[in-house]
Amino acid sequence: MLSFQEIEKIVEKSAKVVNHPSQPANLYAPIDYMLSIGGKRVRPILCLIIYNLYSNNLDRNVIFPAFALEVFHEFTLIHDDIMDKSDTRRGQPTVHKKWNDNVALLSGDVMFILSYKYLAECPSFCKSEVYDLFTKTAIEVCEGQQLDMDFENKSFITMDDYLGMISLKTAVLLACSAKMGAIMAGRPQKECNALYDYGYQLGMAFQITDDYLDTFGDEKVFGKKIGGDIANNKKTWLLVEAFKRADSAQKARLSEIMSIGLWQKETKIQQMQQLYVETGVKDAALSVIGDYYSKAMNALAPAGLNEEQTARLGFFAEKIIGREK
Amino acid sequence: MLSFQEIEKIVEKSAKVVNHPSQPANLYAPIDYMLSIGGKRVRPILCLIIYNLYSNNLDRNVIFPAFALEVFHEFTLIHDDIMDKSDTRRGQPTVHKKWNDNVALLSGDVMFILSYKYLAECPSFCKSEVYDLFTKTAIEVCEGQQLDMDFENKSFITMDDYLGMISLKTAVLLACSAKMGAIMAGRPQKECNALYDYGYQLGMAFQITDDYLDTFGDEKVFGKKIGGDIANNKKTWLLVEAFKRADSAQKARLSEIMSIGLWQKETKIQQMQQLYVETGVKDAALSVIGDYYSKAMNALAPAGLNEEQTARLGFFAEKIIGREK
Repeated sequence: MLSFQEIEKIVEKSAKVVNHPSQPANLYAPIDYMLSIGGKRVRPILCLIIYNLYSNNLDRNVIFPAFALEVFHEFTLIHDDIMDKSDTRRGQPTVHKKWNDNVALLSGDVMFILSYKYLAECPSFCKSEVYDLFTKTAIEVCEGQQLDMDFENKSFITMDDYLGMISLKTAVLLACSAKMGAIMAGRPQKECNALYDYGYQLGMAFQITDDYLDTFGDEKVFGKKIGGDIANNKKTWLLVEAFKRADSAQKARLSEIMSIGLWQKETKIQQMQQLYVETGVKDAALSVIGDYYSKAMNALAPAGLNEEQTARLGFFAEKIIGREK
Repeated sequence: MLSFQEIEKIVEKSAKVVNHPSQPANLYAPIDYMLSIGGKRVRPILCLIIYNLYSNNLDRNVIFPAFALEVFHEFTLIHDDIMDKSDTRRGQPTVHKKWNDNVALLSGDVMFILSYKYLAECPSFCKSEVYDLFTKTAIEVCEGQQLDMDFENKSFITMDDYLGMISLKTAVLLACSAKMGAIMAGRPQKECNALYDYGYQLGMAFQITDDYLDTFGDEKVFGKKIGGDIANNKKTWLLVEAFKRADSAQKARLSEIMSIGLWQKETKIQQMQQLYVETGVKDAALSVIGDYYSKAMNALAPAGLNEEQTARLGFFAEKIIGREK
């Protein structure tokens, strides 16, 4: 088995190896830019870690399909940033900010198509299965993004609504990444599905961690301004849970804080952070992230992994939930 | 062989048979809307006509991949309409106008993914080849759209620039449609390539016909306002050819007409139409469309078709170039 760092390096190298044509420059330059400004590469790393549980042959026809997951994910970010009108991503200007909306729209489109190009490198014995899983997942991710946007216009959503949304927007792609690793390693259906569930639960933990860091993270490490979700009244796990836990006085305060305008952003963020602490939401977030970690590890049972393999996936899961960015 | 009308009916039925989930409504309603407001369905019809030259078994695993071509094409229209800020399409409001930019962006994305879902139905013996052709073509179409946008900021483009752009933006997708029909019918490489060339030349004729109709078409039949390209100084075949043919006095008039503002749109359109007639551009357009028709028919030689098969493709080509919308 390769070390985590070795797999990280392989993924990083693949991001540099892919060659796009230089023309039309407005189409390909944003893609190279997006791939160059970092990102955690969680999805291809997860895919390759799982493949590597079973095989050391990490060659092109496994690395490229794994990389397709990253390219797809980055495509969704480019389009999400247009829709959310976000100006920065990973501490850098977003594509639509650096170029313009049309460039971001079209280079996002081509980036998505490129993900299918990289996927096409996968071993022929599992090509059909990989394509079907990837396509199904991509549709779900779009459904999740639509629900997320729909939530903006709702005054109230339940925790079930929220969990359903992040399941589609985030969890299924990690699940797909994990399962693809197992499929490409030629594992039987039952094991592939167990690894899908592992990735899924991890994905839930990953998104709630993201919500948590946006409010309680360290700005320098996190790479973007803390409190953006609060400022925009975004319906995060923290906000939904706060409404669940709040007594009537706290509910009134929640609504009051949400009505504070952007010209008093700092006050708004501070007051909401304080309320999240008071209502126990901050601790509850960490606890529910831990629960999803356990669910992820429990989901592995049908995969019949040995101790070393299980430890590897435990290590990866801890990295995901213990991250600070 | 089925009649043209029978194939048209099969395609129209497939547009109604596809079932999208009802939720999230903002994601799927625009797709159903887009598929319901008509369109010529040229690409799936071409694909099935060619498949039907060899086989009468037009079942699901051929119809759905053919329909994927339409879904892909409609996705590009949704995104193009955002980029071009077009308000109407086929006499109806565009998706971004009826809903908004974000809805059009995301439902376009999912529509594109759906094209891969329909493609996945294709016979397994040629799945890999079909996927590769489709992905390569989709990338080229985006490159073409980018070039088209880049041209907006250029004061001058050559006829080669123009032909290169429409080759990518329009011709390769018709070429891909034709070739897919042959691939799914299990034809040898040489025949598939001949049909690709037929579709390609036809695609060139198709786009120049589009340019022609935008200036000289019948508004009621064409489905959108005549003269939009002239009003926007769009670099069409007509404009590029006019610059090629114009003497110095006519060049000065061309520039003058192009500088007329939108508040004198009708004058601008009339003057340009007149100049296109005077310089022989109008007739030349019809003549070059005829040339591409001949090239398309000549491209068929290596396909070794019999008289009936050739006549069928001649009939289709005539429909394409003789159309009024």
